[in-house]
Amino acid sequence: MASSKPTGIFPVIMAGGSGTRFWPLSRVSRPKQFLPLATSRPLIVETLARLKGLASPKHSYVVCGAVHAPMVKKALPALPKQNIIVEPQARNTAPAIALATAHVAHVDPQGIVIVIPSDQHVSDIPAFQASLEEAIAVARTGQIVTLGIHPTRPETGYGYIQVGEPLSGTTRRVGRFAEKPDRATAEQYLVSGEYLWNAGLFVFRADVMLEAFKRHMPELSQALDVVRASLGTKKEAAVVRREFPKMPATSIDYGVAEKAQNIAVVPSQCGWSDVGSFNALPEVRPADADGNVSLGGPNFLIDSAGCVVVGKDTPIAVVGMKDVVVVDAGDAILVMPKDKSQDVRKVVEALKAKKLTRYL
Amino acid sequence: MASSKPTGIFPVIMAGGSGTRFWPLSRVSRPKQFLPLATSRPLIVETLARLKGLASPKHSYVVCGAVHAPMVKKALPALPKQNIIVEPQARNTAPAIALATAHVAHVDPQGIVIVIPSDQHVSDIPAFQASLEEAIAVARTGQIVTLGIHPTRPETGYGYIQVGEPLSGTTRRVGRFAEKPDRATAEQYLVSGEYLWNAGLFVFRADVMLEAFKRHMPELSQALDVVRASLGTKKEAAVVRREFPKMPATSIDYGVAEKAQNIAVVPSQCGWSDVGSFNALPEVRPADADGNVSLGGPNFLIDSAGCVVVGKDTPIAVVGMKDVVVVDAGDAILVMPKDKSQDVRKVVEALKAKKLTRYL
Repeated sequence: MASSKPTGIFPVIMAGGSGTRFWPLSRVSRPKQFLPLATSRPLIVETLARLKGLASPKHSYVVCGAVHAPMVKKALPALPKQNIIVEPQARNTAPAIALATAHVAHVDPQGIVIVIPSDQHVSDIPAFQASLEEAIAVARTGQIVTLGIHPTRPETGYGYIQVGEPLSGTTRRVGRFAEKPDRATAEQYLVSGEYLWNAGLFVFRADVMLEAFKRHMPELSQALDVVRASLGTKKEAAVVRREFPKMPATSIDYGVAEKAQNIAVVPSQCGWSDVGSFNALPEVRPADADGNVSLGGPNFLIDSAGCVVVGKDTPIAVVGMKDVVVVDAGDAILVMPKDKSQDVRKVVEALKAKKLTRYL
Repeated sequence: MASSKPTGIFPVIMAGGSGTRFWPLSRVSRPKQFLPLATSRPLIVETLARLKGLASPKHSYVVCGAVHAPMVKKALPALPKQNIIVEPQARNTAPAIALATAHVAHVDPQGIVIVIPSDQHVSDIPAFQASLEEAIAVARTGQIVTLGIHPTRPETGYGYIQVGEPLSGTTRRVGRFAEKPDRATAEQYLVSGEYLWNAGLFVFRADVMLEAFKRHMPELSQALDVVRASLGTKKEAAVVRREFPKMPATSIDYGVAEKAQNIAVVPSQCGWSDVGSFNALPEVRPADADGNVSLGGPNFLIDSAGCVVVGKDTPIAVVGMKDVVVVDAGDAILVMPKDKSQDVRKVVEALKAKKLTRYL
């Protein structure tokens, strides 16, 4: 097995998301990855910084929508601007990864690609990098490697990876990918010790993934071949615009990972959080003695516990409340129970229904 | 008994309050009576308007602190500016009423004074005026008359008036004034039908009240005599500044009403509310089918019931909440359970402790 080196390693930061779960902080024009949720810097900035020493920003790519490309450029000044890969449209992760893999293969056919979501948080960066180092080493041998996060609760919002036979080091073959479970199943998964969270993090050789697309997603592979032939030519942009919509709008999990035989998982305990909603902020931000997380402000939490309060410049006073989320985005305010964080989409729907697009 | 006439009737609107129970809407510089809580107009504006047809704004007085005099002038343009009586300092209601009574007696020794708080709401104005008409008629005979509000709940936050023997019409002698009761006592009061809420509303002849001060508050009466002699002279302001602080800082209830023999009560059902806290807004503002009161906005109340939401220009989304108060004053935000409305003072204390005076 070849040892991993900083050269030939190409992070691909996936920034195509446009979630609404952080409304009113997140907007169409300012999705989650651009918000300073876990630290004082936007999640996407931390994502690139997290790879420091492992890969160079010069070799890093970001895949995003056209409207967000200027924000990426501004947020990540160390990234060469030609490394911002614009998706002509949002078509789930397989086409986005295919496009990025084509770019890497164009530069370095056996280059190692690290696919990494732009909107997650990791608290233990040395542990994270150690996991990636191991994943890179295994990927060099021709495996598609995913990071599997040791679950800490019976989470029903994530997909799971059942570990299989040992492969090398701590790396295991993948037993199977499991869909988001119900509560009882999630509890079984947790107790069994055999299931890891699927964090959407993949490490592979570019040529290995191109081969996997050919085998498991032939329609995508055909369009991708046309794109690859155009890379670096004057036709590139027009070809991408034409071919990208032909690629099936499928996740890399469903399209490739669940079907491939050469798929492995590196179990990782690196303080990972997907920062999925306001409810997750206490995972990534320090709380006071009463379990309150307060950002911005000055905020006043009085006789209150388990609350998440995010202010802008205006002070927020929360008195006698338990487990609520209070968010002031400056031009819109949200109050909801912490465990109903998913319901924020109902506000977004109501705003759409009333055509109050300025708040979307 | 003489019939009541618009002439010789002098409303005295008590606007010395500086409550904090409507923080962040109410501030030191903008107390409750200047807020449009019950309607789209400030409570003090509604208070004067409520007397239309019964008394003229030209014969109406307002007692307030020096800092609020300009706001009174602006809010009540129909009031002659010399009818704004400035208290040199806040000394409870007896000195304020004494000062106003001296002014009325100076103009019309047997003039009828209607003492009326500036920060209450009345929904049934014809009923209110009918009660006042009766009170005025009784006051002309030499009684000090208070309006007693039929209680609608076992309220522990108000003083009560026990009704005594019938006097004339619906008017009763006062049995006794009762302090704020505990819950069990309040429930007995409610069931008995013998107790009315003390609304702080008094009707009396100026000469009768001066006589009552002489008998029951001789120290106040002495200082008041000095003030009365100065009224209309160049010395007036200096004399008031010197004599007013000599008057005991006592309520009119304790200083006079509880001691006087010539005290009567007109029971009234006029949709009265003291608008005592955010919790009281559903008494005075229309609620939606789920019992939510929403002011300002556009606000979005989703899966929520019994909430009071007061917005400014910024939309407030309240999702899945029950019985909470959410208030955005533009420069400060409050979230608290509706039944903890009294605890808003804790925020004011915290702001004071942190010397954040701009939010007080």
